[in-house]
Amino acid sequence: MLKEERKMIIGVIGGSKCTPHIRKIAYQLGKGIARKGHYIVCGGLGGVMEAVCQGARHGGGITIGLLPGKDKREANPYIDIPLVTAMSHARNAIIVRTADVLVAVDGKYGTLSEIGLALACGKKVIGIETWKIKGVTRVKDVEEALDLL
Amino acid sequence: MLKEERKMIIGVIGGSKCTPHIRKIAYQLGKGIARKGHYIVCGGLGGVMEAVCQGARHGGGITIGLLPGKDKREANPYIDIPLVTAMSHARNAIIVRTADVLVAVDGKYGTLSEIGLALACGKKVIGIETWKIKGVTRVKDVEEALDLL
Amino acid sequence: MLKEERKMIIGVIGGSKCTPHIRKIAYQLGKGIARKGHYIVCGGLGGVMEAVCQGARHGGGITIGLLPGKDKREANPYIDIPLVTAMSHARNAIIVRTADVLVAVDGKYGTLSEIGLALACGKKVIGIETWKIKGVTRVKDVEEALDLL
Amino acid sequence: MLKEERKMIIGVIGGSKCTPHIRKIAYQLGKGIARKGHYIVCGGLGGVMEAVCQGARHGGGITIGLLPGKDKREANPYIDIPLVTAMSHARNAIIVRTADVLVAVDGKYGTLSEIGLALACGKKVIGIETWKIKGVTRVKDVEEALDLL
Repeated sequence: MLKEERKMIIGVIGGSKCTPHIRKIAYQLGKGIARKGHYIVCGGLGGVMEAVCQGARHGGGITIGLLPGKDKREANPYIDIPLVTAMSHARNAIIVRTADVLVAVDGKYGTLSEIGLALACGKKVIGIETWKIKGVTRVKDVEEALDLL
Repeated sequence: MLKEERKMIIGVIGGSKCTPHIRKIAYQLGKGIARKGHYIVCGGLGGVMEAVCQGARHGGGITIGLLPGKDKREANPYIDIPLVTAMSHARNAIIVRTADVLVAVDGKYGTLSEIGLALACGKKVIGIETWKIKGVTRVKDVEEALDLL
Repeated sequence: MLKEERKMIIGVIGGSKCTPHIRKIAYQLGKGIARKGHYIVCGGLGGVMEAVCQGARHGGGITIGLLPGKDKREANPYIDIPLVTAMSHARNAIIVRTADVLVAVDGKYGTLSEIGLALACGKKVIGIETWKIKGVTRVKDVEEALDLL
Repeated sequence: MLKEERKMIIGVIGGSKCTPHIRKIAYQLGKGIARKGHYIVCGGLGGVMEAVCQGARHGGGITIGLLPGKDKREANPYIDIPLVTAMSHARNAIIVRTADVLVAVDGKYGTLSEIGLALACGKKVIGIETWKIKGVTRVKDVEEALDLL
C-alpha cells in the first residue's frame, strides 16, 4: 500500500446526548461513510458518536474513538479502535487534525469548540442541523453530506 | 497563604493579529485586570495576547503565557511566565481550565474554539467585540468587563 | 461485536533510528504480533516504529501511528491509521494508555520515558535489548516476547 | 523587562509521596532555588512537589504547578500559580519543556519518565538520590545542586 492509497478519515463531531431524530441522522451518516470506504474518527462516547459508529459497523466500516478519559471501557460498543487519551477536551484537537474532512451533527458547546478548531486548522467542515458558523458548509440532509465526501 | 487567598486568574482570549482599535481595548483590559490584582493567562503570542500583557505589565500585574510551540522565545515580550506546551491548539484547553473567568476580545476561529470550550467547561465568558454565541456575557466596553471581574 | 471481543492493542516503543540488527528484530516482532491477530500502536515514525509496522503489514495486521507533528505525511509508509496529534512527546502518554501491553525494543531517552510512563500506569512492559529498568520483563528474543502476548 | 531578563524556571520532579528525609531535601532545595531568584515549576501535588514548594514559599519564591487533574484544589497549599491541565501524565511534557534546568529528587516511575523526557529534549537534569540514568548529573546534596543552577 502506498501512502497515497490510505483511506480517507472522516471526523464526525456531535453531542454525547441527542434526540432520536438526530440519532437516526448520525446512524445513516455513519453507514454512508462506511459504504464509501472511509474510516471514521470521533470522540468515542455516546449520542451522535455512538449512532455514527453503529451505522458504520452496519455499513462494514472501521471506527476510531479518541476517548477523553483513562478507561477504554468508556468507548461506545461500536468503536473498533479505542484510543485512550486521558486528556479530556484536549483530545478534540487530535480528532480535528486527524480528520481529512469533518461532519458536525447537532451538538452543544463541545461541538462548537471542535468546529472552531477545525476551521482554525483549515479543515472542511460540513454541518447538519448544527451551529450556524460562517465557514461551515451547511447541508440539508445526510445524502447531501455524503455527496460532499 | 491559604489556598482561598490565591489570586484570581483571568483568561484573555483573542486573535494573534488585530487592529489598532482592538489592540487599545486589549491593552486597557490588561491594565485594568492587573490593577484589580488578578493574574492573566493567555496564549502568550501577539495581537490581543500581546496587548493585554503589555497593559498588565504597565498595571503592575503578572502574565502567564501558554505557548503552542517548542520555543520559549515565541512568547511576546510582556509574558512573565512562559509555559512551553509544544502541543499547538491543545494548549487552549489548559487556558480555559486554568482561568477562573475568561474575557474574549475580537478573534477568529481559534477564539471561537476557546469560547466553545470554556462554555463546555461551565466557565463564565465575557465578550468584547467578539463572536455572538449564546452563553457569552456580552459587554460594550472594557469598563463594563472589569466591573464583572 | 461485543466490547470484550475487541482486538488487543500492543504498543511497540523504540527509537526512530536503529541498526539493521534491531530493525530485523522489530520487523519480526511486528509480523508475529499481526499473526496473533493483535493491532499495533506506535509513534508512527521511522526506525523501530517503521520496521515493526512493515512486519505487521507483511503479517496481515493493522497499524496505528500516533504522530507527534502536524502532518500526516510524517507517518512511515506502513501505518494504516495515522493519528495527527501535533503534541510532540505528549503523544507518548496516549500510546502508553492505549496499549494493553507494551514491547520496548532498543531505544534512547524517548523510549526510556515511555517505559517509565507505562510502568507508572501499571502496564506490562516487555523489553528486548532495551533499557534495564526494574519492572520491565526482559526477554532474549522475539519468540519469547510473542509467547508473552 | 526585556525577554533576556526573564527569570530562570527550574523544574523539580519527584514522587507525590516521600520519606521525611527526602522531604527535608526537597524543602531545602526549594528554599535555595527561591533565594537564587528562580521560579519553580513542578507537578503541583504532594510529596517532593509539596516540600519543594513549601521551601520556595519560605525562601520568597514563586511556584508554578502543572496539575494533572481538572480541579485547581488538588494543588498543594504552596503553589502560587496552579495550571489546570486535565491531561494526566501528558502534562509532564510541559514541565520538562518549560524548565530551563531540571532537578530530580527521589521518585518512582513517573519521575523516571520525566527524566527520560528531559534528556530526550536536551535539558540538563540534576539528580539527588534518584534513578541512576546515564546523562543525569548526579550530586550528593542540595548545596551541590544549587551550585549548578
